[in-house]
Amino acid sequence: MTVTLKDGSTIQAEQGEKIIDVTKRISEGLARNALIARMNGKLVDLTRTIDEDCTLEILTFKDEEGRNAYRHTCAHILAQAVKNLYPDAKLAIGPAIKTGFYYDFDLPSPITMDDLPRIEKEMESIIKADLPIERSVVTRKQALTRMRGFDEIYKLQLIEDLPRGSEITLYTQGNFVDLCAGPHLMSTGKVKCFKLTQITGAYWRGNEQNKMLTRIYGTAFEKKSELTEYLNAVEEAKKRDHNKLGRELGIFMTDELVGQGLPLLMPNGAKLFQILQRFVENEEERRGYMLTKTPYMAKSDLYKISGHWDHYKDGMFLLGDEAMDDEVMALRPMTCPFQYLIYKNGIKSYRDLPCRYNETSTLFRNESSGEMHGLTRVRQFTLSEAHIICAPEHVEEEFKNVFELILYMEKCLGISDEISYRFSKWDPKKKTKYINNPKAWTETQTLMKKILDDLGINYVEADGEAAFYGPKLDLQARNVWGKEDTIITIQLDFAAAERFDMFYVAEDGTRKRPMVIHRSSIGSYERTIAMLIEKYAGAFPVWMSPNQVKVLALTDRTADKCKEIVSRLHALGIRATSDLRNEKIGFKIREAQLEKTPYMLIIGDREAEEDKVSVRARKAGDLGTMTFDEFATRIKNEIETFSLEN
Amino acid sequence: MTVTLKDGSTIQAEQGEKIIDVTKRISEGLARNALIARMNGKLVDLTRTIDEDCTLEILTFKDEEGRNAYRHTCAHILAQAVKNLYPDAKLAIGPAIKTGFYYDFDLPSPITMDDLPRIEKEMESIIKADLPIERSVVTRKQALTRMRGFDEIYKLQLIEDLPRGSEITLYTQGNFVDLCAGPHLMSTGKVKCFKLTQITGAYWRGNEQNKMLTRIYGTAFEKKSELTEYLNAVEEAKKRDHNKLGRELGIFMTDELVGQGLPLLMPNGAKLFQILQRFVENEEERRGYMLTKTPYMAKSDLYKISGHWDHYKDGMFLLGDEAMDDEVMALRPMTCPFQYLIYKNGIKSYRDLPCRYNETSTLFRNESSGEMHGLTRVRQFTLSEAHIICAPEHVEEEFKNVFELILYMEKCLGISDEISYRFSKWDPKKKTKYINNPKAWTETQTLMKKILDDLGINYVEADGEAAFYGPKLDLQARNVWGKEDTIITIQLDFAAAERFDMFYVAEDGTRKRPMVIHRSSIGSYERTIAMLIEKYAGAFPVWMSPNQVKVLALTDRTADKCKEIVSRLHALGIRATSDLRNEKIGFKIREAQLEKTPYMLIIGDREAEEDKVSVRARKAGDLGTMTFDEFATRIKNEIETFSLEN
Repeated sequence: MTVTLKDGSTIQAEQGEKIIDVTKRISEGLARNALIARMNGKLVDLTRTIDEDCTLEILTFKDEEGRNAYRHTCAHILAQAVKNLYPDAKLAIGPAIKTGFYYDFDLPSPITMDDLPRIEKEMESIIKADLPIERSVVTRKQALTRMRGFDEIYKLQLIEDLPRGSEITLYTQGNFVDLCAGPHLMSTGKVKCFKLTQITGAYWRGNEQNKMLTRIYGTAFEKKSELTEYLNAVEEAKKRDHNKLGRELGIFMTDELVGQGLPLLMPNGAKLFQILQRFVENEEERRGYMLTKTPYMAKSDLYKISGHWDHYKDGMFLLGDEAMDDEVMALRPMTCPFQYLIYKNGIKSYRDLPCRYNETSTLFRNESSGEMHGLTRVRQFTLSEAHIICAPEHVEEEFKNVFELILYMEKCLGISDEISYRFSKWDPKKKTKYINNPKAWTETQTLMKKILDDLGINYVEADGEAAFYGPKLDLQARNVWGKEDTIITIQLDFAAAERFDMFYVAEDGTRKRPMVIHRSSIGSYERTIAMLIEKYAGAFPVWMSPNQVKVLALTDRTADKCKEIVSRLHALGIRATSDLRNEKIGFKIREAQLEKTPYMLIIGDREAEEDKVSVRARKAGDLGTMTFDEFATRIKNEIETFSLEN
Repeated sequence: MTVTLKDGSTIQAEQGEKIIDVTKRISEGLARNALIARMNGKLVDLTRTIDEDCTLEILTFKDEEGRNAYRHTCAHILAQAVKNLYPDAKLAIGPAIKTGFYYDFDLPSPITMDDLPRIEKEMESIIKADLPIERSVVTRKQALTRMRGFDEIYKLQLIEDLPRGSEITLYTQGNFVDLCAGPHLMSTGKVKCFKLTQITGAYWRGNEQNKMLTRIYGTAFEKKSELTEYLNAVEEAKKRDHNKLGRELGIFMTDELVGQGLPLLMPNGAKLFQILQRFVENEEERRGYMLTKTPYMAKSDLYKISGHWDHYKDGMFLLGDEAMDDEVMALRPMTCPFQYLIYKNGIKSYRDLPCRYNETSTLFRNESSGEMHGLTRVRQFTLSEAHIICAPEHVEEEFKNVFELILYMEKCLGISDEISYRFSKWDPKKKTKYINNPKAWTETQTLMKKILDDLGINYVEADGEAAFYGPKLDLQARNVWGKEDTIITIQLDFAAAERFDMFYVAEDGTRKRPMVIHRSSIGSYERTIAMLIEKYAGAFPVWMSPNQVKVLALTDRTADKCKEIVSRLHALGIRATSDLRNEKIGFKIREAQLEKTPYMLIIGDREAEEDKVSVRARKAGDLGTMTFDEFATRIKNEIETFSLEN
């Protein structure tokens, strides 16, 4: 048999020789690191035999697929340990995930984090026993008989749902048998170090109608040092996690009485929102945008024209019932049709174009409660939204202006490095998901590709991610847990003008259809705030800090001076508070540090007398004593230049 | 018979003597002006006889009741004229109203404004005929027979609905008979001058399920000069009417596709909104308020605690159906419960109080479409809202601070003179409308009365106008049509703390219930904008003008200089645009005047050369030439001091 390796070289193998044995002949070192293989493009166990000429790639922990198999095997070890300790436990599913693995169990009685060490200990003894892991192909009937024998009711459902003719495999390690497509490592002893990290609830098959199961999360690495590094990174991420830190810093809260996906912005959060909103509206006004403020609901008639009724109805909150009420209204999922109506108010000539309408627009998405999370997955959010209605020949220039605006705002927010780009196109196979006009799709996508290439953007292409009315450029960012979200988009819309009968009178007196660019500039305020919390671990740059300066009285005698300084700062438009309590200065400083205030001014008798301030910067520490004006000049300059320095 | 007059004096009358004859004996002049009378507290015709000792007051056009009878008689003359001209017309109702009268008809074919002169002519001949107006008391049966004879189907319904035992009267003038409680003037010739002003549709009994009738409006005065003055005032009001002018100035629009009561703020309106919002939020921050931003919907659970579910459900938009869905949500009609949840996030001590939470909060009221009007009667609006949660002993001080804030804002907006005050109390008879706690009502109302008296506010008291949870001070304003609306309220709430289990830890370590003050500062932004449009006829004071300066190029040669000046104004935070078109300067000036721009800067060659600007102020006219800095200082000063001068 001729085996072609990844580098193109070949090696001969006996018919029926195991992959692991061929690997050993290639290199003992590779065999030691080998976890699974890709044979003729399919992922397989190393114990599989070579029965024909094939291509072969040996995968290690460095490869995503190798890493997944390693962790998936660890999930089986977890399941075996749980079955050993809780014989009545029923198994559901246990896949590898980006950060490790989990396994879902139906347990006879609840367990807590305190039970994890005991389970880990049992897992260690399974690993120590180094049980061989064996794959067997079975018939559907055999599989059902085996799982019925174990009373594994969830596995039975999984088998029932397999399409007819699928290959069904079982994996066995010692006394433990699991229904699994594999591949797996050769034995349990191959897993070197692991850690169980979390217990949560999870519905069987993710459906709220089903039973809530117990999900145990864990992760596994080859080296102790890698595991430690990962766990430290998780700790760091936890500290930055907006869903935790945002609550601690009084930025937002949620409440069962209000409902899922409906965060309440508390004073620090509302202030941050206000700062960002003013920043965005001011900058956009400077760039020729015209603000609108349109209603949050409309009659279904409007959404029927826009296409949302056909393409997005499930995602909207409806008011009233189509079958019963004369008038059905819906909360808006976006602002486009409202701004189109404003465009249509009065005939527009080519001289009026481009019409750049922006709005700080609250939008509603009726998503299921299971998907809700902090400030990033919500049912109500506010977008820095705009629609640019322009002559087709100006699309390129307007698109580039939008991109330049976004770059500027990213820079001010300090998030330029976090962003990657995705060119989202339609999927011609999914006709119902998109407006069916292949010619327009091709033309618009070609134009957009040209623009992106001209701009030199380093983007990936994604089919089936377009809006229903046209292609878009998505700006993607990852959160502290590595999850990628779209934070900003620019979309080209070839359909809106026709649907809404928007036109302009061209220079030659004829009526022409404009193009529409849908865009955001900083995206959703909620999501942006979440991102900023995680980026800065709550220590926001001065210009966006809800509180910029805290004035601390060293003694009771300087309380009045502190108040005076706060007033003078307020008069300059600087956000400042004071701490006049009768507490030790060290205590006050620590508290201000916990609040992540960018600047502390400490006022003792001498400072009060000389009209000076003793300055502590959040990053740079003690800056010594300076006059009030010196400090004011410094901080005002930082604010006006959107400095990220302190 | 002894007749006691208003001034306490008495006069003797024969039994059965008519009031008009007694009046003549008092004074021929008074008899000439007399319209109706109040006898023993009841309004009666002057032809009524005196049959017992009584009190008597003669009412003229100067009295509201006299004026109403005058105009009500004119409504009968209108009805008679319509019946003469359109014998198949059916009569509905025809009352006097604040500005005149109307009569609703069911007409066989539609009529237009063009038909009004013909009707007026017929009315004049009825007046000229000076037909006596005679009152007759009839039985229900007689009334029904008469009206059946005339085939007056609406009058028949009205009679059917009269409570048993009511006195039923008919009024007859010539060939015309109407079912009417009176009183009326003695004859048609008493009406001196009148004018039919408008035709609209109106549902029978104001119910959308019923037939749409034709409503003809008119007014009547004693003197031609008064009528002319009134009609001129109406013309002026029409010009200022926010529902007309607001649309013309590009402040707002409505659209059938969006729905009734859901105005879209266009760029000028959205800008005005932004200016006001920043003004309010800045000023409130200065006064120790903490901004929140809370969701626009919540689960019914929240409104059940707040009491809105019991007391206000019909006014809310519901999402979902109680009978069918697990979770029913509602759009919020106010923000109180959301801010209470924020208060409850973390235990509060007496040191944290007062907590002054403000929000620029969008609210929703599910009112029927018939009541919708411009920016004043809407289904979605945004309130400058706040809740002050404080120790009971601080209610007085906090209430006074709120009042002082409102006075300040009224002054800045220039609307101080338009406001009157109403102390709105509960109605103990309407138990279901209010939280049933008479002791708390009495205490809170007594406290509020004391505060209002201390403040020296000149208020009227109104029973049955309180919020369901406590008494309030309403600030009332009239629109151009004389209609009074509440624009701002301050409310004391004795119930919220208990309902939401809000407490604070007092100085002695015990848990105590705070009081809540609900308040607005400038009221609803939409209603405030409507009021400002009418107050200033669209010529807003400089500080709130969406566009503050327009820079006009005298020739093409100064275009660049104009652009430079606009940039310099922008850099100073002044809103400015330019007009560089190749048009005559007179034309450009007229256009800027129509847009009501506060300042025009006209730049000719000489100004450009000397770096000067030629200034035209909206009110003061030509201010001559000055340096850019002189102008900038002038306008910046006006903006910063909220000057109402230009």
